[in-house]
Amino acid sequence: MKLYDYERAPNPRRVRIFAAEKGIELEKVNIDLGTKQQMGDDYKAINSRISVPALELDDGTVICESVAICRYLDEIQPEPALFGTGAVGKANVEMWHRRMEIEGLQPVADSVRNTVEFFAGRALAGPHDFEQIPALAERGMKRVDIFYDTLNERLNESPFIAGDDYTIADIAALCAIDFARVLKKRIGEDQTALQRWHDTVSARPSAKA
Amino acid sequence: MKLYDYERAPNPRRVRIFAAEKGIELEKVNIDLGTKQQMGDDYKAINSRISVPALELDDGTVICESVAICRYLDEIQPEPALFGTGAVGKANVEMWHRRMEIEGLQPVADSVRNTVEFFAGRALAGPHDFEQIPALAERGMKRVDIFYDTLNERLNESPFIAGDDYTIADIAALCAIDFARVLKKRIGEDQTALQRWHDTVSARPSAKA
Repeated sequence: MKLYDYERAPNPRRVRIFAAEKGIELEKVNIDLGTKQQMGDDYKAINSRISVPALELDDGTVICESVAICRYLDEIQPEPALFGTGAVGKANVEMWHRRMEIEGLQPVADSVRNTVEFFAGRALAGPHDFEQIPALAERGMKRVDIFYDTLNERLNESPFIAGDDYTIADIAALCAIDFARVLKKRIGEDQTALQRWHDTVSARPSAKA
Repeated sequence: MKLYDYERAPNPRRVRIFAAEKGIELEKVNIDLGTKQQMGDDYKAINSRISVPALELDDGTVICESVAICRYLDEIQPEPALFGTGAVGKANVEMWHRRMEIEGLQPVADSVRNTVEFFAGRALAGPHDFEQIPALAERGMKRVDIFYDTLNERLNESPFIAGDDYTIADIAALCAIDFARVLKKRIGEDQTALQRWHDTVSARPSAKA
């Protein structure tokens, strides 16, 4: 299996952490987004959506979308159960994971892609070009602030985001928060529960994957 | 089980169709978004995110987020397998479903919520108020046009969106396309594969759920 990867991007990192938690070794192929390598014909032939990550199986099948790749890895290596266990447990993890994506990863991406000069004319990933929208970046920053507050509240009552166990929801939140450094956003001094959680999940070896 | 529902909204419809395909009967409780009933204290006590759908189990557990509810329903009633079968099959459905959400449901929602007068000051669902962003509505419409084109291409080569079988990806796409009527968007006369698929999935009894 080959993972088409780019170290600094948050979405491939989600997959790398997920695989590391599962103990799955992936051959990594760097696609240098910094030089727009994803737009070249070689990568387009692998993933016409020109995004990373993408997972290529030994038979040539390509799976795109971070969470689809995680699902595949979960199927071939069910333990530990990062998508939850039991009907209610799986639904609960899906709910929290979705919230981390909608309330965390998305607003961080909205802000980064609509402000950083490198993304001018490329405000959305994928094969279509869109201009930056400053008002969307501004909305994103407000939502990021709200995200940190709600996360701190949640982590005041729960060791991990979806409950007692580390799950894919923690991975999404960690990638969102670490990516928000680009926006100079930091965990507030009064957000002690969020800081405690961030220290804990960052100390896991998978965080360096 | 009670489903907190609103007939005209696309997200509760995703769950209603999913449940109907599974043959699961849900008691429906209408939350009238037209009169902002979701903002009342009664509903806030059920779902502090003030969004529909939400599923309340008999023991009082509440599951929010459409896809989390679908996961729960899938766990209690695995057939038919609307999330795919086998490791590659499940990953493939997840990939296509994500694409339908990111490339279809999201831009339709961006356009509707940032143009329709009813959503002024409420451009995002949830407990926080945001002003409409006209440029985001405009970007949404361009993306909706692209969505119809790419969907038509895909359905030229595949009976359903994820392949040979009807899955949750078809449900997401159907809800996106039907919701786009608000924007006066229609399937183009030359988009014959998309029209054929739309006729097929709309003729299933679940489409009326």
